[in-house]
Amino acid sequence: MSYCLAIYTKLGLVLASDSRTNAGLDQANVARKLYTFVKPGERVFVLLTSGGLSLSQSVLALLQSDYNAGYGLANVATMYDAARCVGEAVRAVAARDRQFLERDNIGFNVNFLVGGQIDQQPHELYLIYPQGNPLQATPDCPFLQIGESKYGRPILDRAVKYDGTSLEQATKLALISLDSTMRSNLTVGPPIDLAVYHANELRLRQQIRLSADDPQLLAIRTQWEQELRSASQRLPVIQFPGEYS
Amino acid sequence: MSYCLAIYTKLGLVLASDSRTNAGLDQANVARKLYTFVKPGERVFVLLTSGGLSLSQSVLALLQSDYNAGYGLANVATMYDAARCVGEAVRAVAARDRQFLERDNIGFNVNFLVGGQIDQQPHELYLIYPQGNPLQATPDCPFLQIGESKYGRPILDRAVKYDGTSLEQATKLALISLDSTMRSNLTVGPPIDLAVYHANELRLRQQIRLSADDPQLLAIRTQWEQELRSASQRLPVIQFPGEYS
Repeated sequence: MSYCLAIYTKLGLVLASDSRTNAGLDQANVARKLYTFVKPGERVFVLLTSGGLSLSQSVLALLQSDYNAGYGLANVATMYDAARCVGEAVRAVAARDRQFLERDNIGFNVNFLVGGQIDQQPHELYLIYPQGNPLQATPDCPFLQIGESKYGRPILDRAVKYDGTSLEQATKLALISLDSTMRSNLTVGPPIDLAVYHANELRLRQQIRLSADDPQLLAIRTQWEQELRSASQRLPVIQFPGEYS
Repeated sequence: MSYCLAIYTKLGLVLASDSRTNAGLDQANVARKLYTFVKPGERVFVLLTSGGLSLSQSVLALLQSDYNAGYGLANVATMYDAARCVGEAVRAVAARDRQFLERDNIGFNVNFLVGGQIDQQPHELYLIYPQGNPLQATPDCPFLQIGESKYGRPILDRAVKYDGTSLEQATKLALISLDSTMRSNLTVGPPIDLAVYHANELRLRQQIRLSADDPQLLAIRTQWEQELRSASQRLPVIQFPGEYS
């Protein structure tokens, strides 16, 4: 399993992923799930991926090959077209592999998040389903998740606002969401890859990989656990019927 | 979907459930999922159930009928026997209904949590799988969940300790876990049924149903959201390579 999330605010995008991949319980390896395509001053795309690693690698190989040749993500006109471009690559891999997977009862499962900006157009964020169709993040729904998304969702539901969350704050929330998931599910694991895109910069100046023992990650994890415990202790004590004074 | 959880500490048990039941998205009704069997001074059992409502009702009908006749939960000798007794009732319903469900591709899915105490024996907590076999909570694994369990798990993983968590505190944590799940998943909904069993009391004096607009539930929800937001703001700001001073 994987867990990737992207937060969409007025000020930009925060994109983060775990890096665990496994084929069976006894084999856990590290695989990068965050990819960037950047032409400084013109276009920035950050892609996150979950699902079958063989499939996502094939999709990325297609996208990279077109990009290098000046096609695809290198010349799409809008973010919607970029999302469609990733969807077409997903469908191309499906056309090649899906029947062979299904013959052995393996589902064709690969998901992408695509965030970025082109020229003076607004920054946008999309989820691409295994069928290739795109879903866009909106101010009412300012984050998207793929993979093992449930453990890390409550903090996002409660704290992410399109209008009111700074990118610094969204970065912390993304790390909390990922760390909560890693704590509760062994198939999601470090290192964490993280990229922050500031709207209208058209370059990617904030990107980091946090290993399991990274001091910044440990500091956030430790402080968050302490904060959660002390916050829960400050909550009012529940009174039961018959006990009211 | 449902969500039920039970916390097992040195001092007793906290058991809580949502009450939403649905057959298709357009039909959401209320169904009780917390049941008690109590002979004051002798034995206390609290049962929580998730899965098919038709199945859990049948299991409870069998348990209640035996109990009323002085058998089953009314005369099992140990908590392990109580767990086995619930498992046998699950298997009896499976024998009656499973093939008819599977003929229409409906899985036989019903889960129970069973907590309680008999006489001078220790209080214990079990999960009963749809196959009828029991799993016991231990000091190392001091909570059990059934149903839609992922959203509400991170707070339990981080804050529940068998040795160190008071029942008052465990009650708050159970409510936070349930409320987080209701916030993120529409198929889990109020009212919340909650029972707290204090070890060695052999009666059940703390039980409450909290509706969606219960002032205690609203107070906890509001304060918890505020606490989460301010706690996340106190976390250290992530520094990116090249930005270190």
